Amino acid sequence: MSERGRFISLEGGEGAGKSTLLAGLHAHLLQQGVTLLQVREPGGTPLGEAIRSIVLDPAHSAISAESELLLMFASRAQLVRERIQPALEAGQWVLCDRYVDASYAYQGGGRGQPVERIAELERWACAGLKPDLTLLLDLPVSTGRARAAGRGAADRIEVEADVFFERVRNAYRERANAEPRRFRVIDASQPPEQVLETAIAATEHLFEASR
Amino acid sequence: MSERGRFISLEGGEGAGKSTLLAGLHAHLLQQGVTLLQVREPGGTPLGEAIRSIVLDPAHSAISAESELLLMFASRAQLVRERIQPALEAGQWVLCDRYVDASYAYQGGGRGQPVERIAELERWACAGLKPDLTLLLDLPVSTGRARAAGRGAADRIEVEADVFFERVRNAYRERANAEPRRFRVIDASQPPEQVLETAIAATEHLFEASR
Ligand SMILES: Nc1ncnc2c1ncn2[C@@H]1O[C@H](COP(=O)(O)OP(=O)(O)OP(=O)(O)O)[C@@H](O)[C@H]1O
Ligand SMILES: Nc1ncnc2c1ncn2[C@@H]1O[C@H](COP(=O)(O)OP(=O)(O)OP(=O)(O)O)[C@@H](O)[C@H]1O
Ligand SMILES: [Mg+2]
Ligand SMILES: [Mg+2]
Repeated sequence: MSERGRFISLEGGEGAGKSTLLAGLHAHLLQQGVTLLQVREPGGTPLGEAIRSIVLDPAHSAISAESELLLMFASRAQLVRERIQPALEAGQWVLCDRYVDASYAYQGGGRGQPVERIAELERWACAGLKPDLTLLLDLPVSTGRARAAGRGAADRIEVEADVFFERVRNAYRERANAEPRRFRVIDASQPPEQVLETAIAATEHLFEASR
Repeated sequence: MSERGRFISLEGGEGAGKSTLLAGLHAHLLQQGVTLLQVREPGGTPLGEAIRSIVLDPAHSAISAESELLLMFASRAQLVRERIQPALEAGQWVLCDRYVDASYAYQGGGRGQPVERIAELERWACAGLKPDLTLLLDLPVSTGRARAAGRGAADRIEVEADVFFERVRNAYRERANAEPRRFRVIDASQPPEQVLETAIAATEHLFEASR
């Protein structure tokens, strides 16, 4: 049987450069001979994409913080079972554009849902699956919003005020401080090439044989 | 300020006669001068109806038990906050076609999700809101399925095997045994008029001033 794959998640606020980095990292890992699955959250499965279109729809402005949290985990529970776990077991590496830390940051820090509530959902909804490496693209809120601004109509979360995204950023940094072995915080105000270089360096230990 | 309204939920397996009873009960309560809100689960809000169309869609056959549970509570959390609580506070009575006991029966009994997991979700997602009265329409599985059979294409849950619905029925009865003051179990094999009469009798104590 092939060795279990590695699980890398990318986190950060709006416009931090996750999708940009993901493209570069994907290309790099392919060059290294790694077989890859790339997915995004919410989404990544037919159920998850249906949930995504609900939670990001500005028409659903009345969604309660509790419902938003439950929907994010409904999408995640499906993604873990239907795609991430099978891929890892088949020896593929998985690159995920946001994962459970995003709920701590957005539904926790941003919307004020208690950390213990999120931790309890993580325990059973994610089937115990943690990333081997989480790359956190850290950036001042205003810089990220300016970068993302060019992209057309804002979704239901992007329309939040700056104070919301400040809480998101702080919650992400607290997560990184609490789990320094899993996280690598990258200064996302650097040029894309340097962000990619730092990310690649952070993946190097993943090539060692399974710990 | 007007007195707080009463909250009545209707529960039971497929084809037990919930919708039929609801119509009769609705008419009776209106005659009594009660102002009513009637809702259904999953659904009852724009978000809930969007979730309903996902969870009942036979195309989503791969939905994990965990995701199903989370989706049901996402719909419920929204329904409680957006419609049920405001109605009760305005003095309206609420008639709900399924509520939280349905998750104990279907996601718990039917799909095997642990009771404590459901109880924990109930604690925070339902904002502590319990029905004042729950009418459980109890019926042998085969009778209910035969009644429901005439209704056209089966949804994603209706296609389950009889053993699934036996577990659902048993879980409902256990709920009723555990909370005999809140539940009224009605023999749903009786003719509709008798089911309605029993249900009406069960609502009488709700007209007394708030306990
Ligand atoms: N390091 C960088 N420096 C400057 N601009 C960047 C950098 N990385 C990405 N950008 C640009 O910023 C914009 C947002 O980048 P990207 O879409 O990768 O962010 P994102 O984190 O995926 O955003 P979202 O959270 O909305 O998905 C794009 O126009 C991208 O070209
Ligand atoms: N007491 C009864 N005796 C005989 N038939 C009944 C009775 N109550 C309802 N029916 C018939 O059984 C069928 C199912 O009833 P109904 O739609 O009210 O069930 P339900 O519990 O709402 O089902 P579902 O769970 O699928 O919504 C209908 O055709 C209805 O006319
Ligand atoms: Mg992106
Ligand atoms: Mg019905």
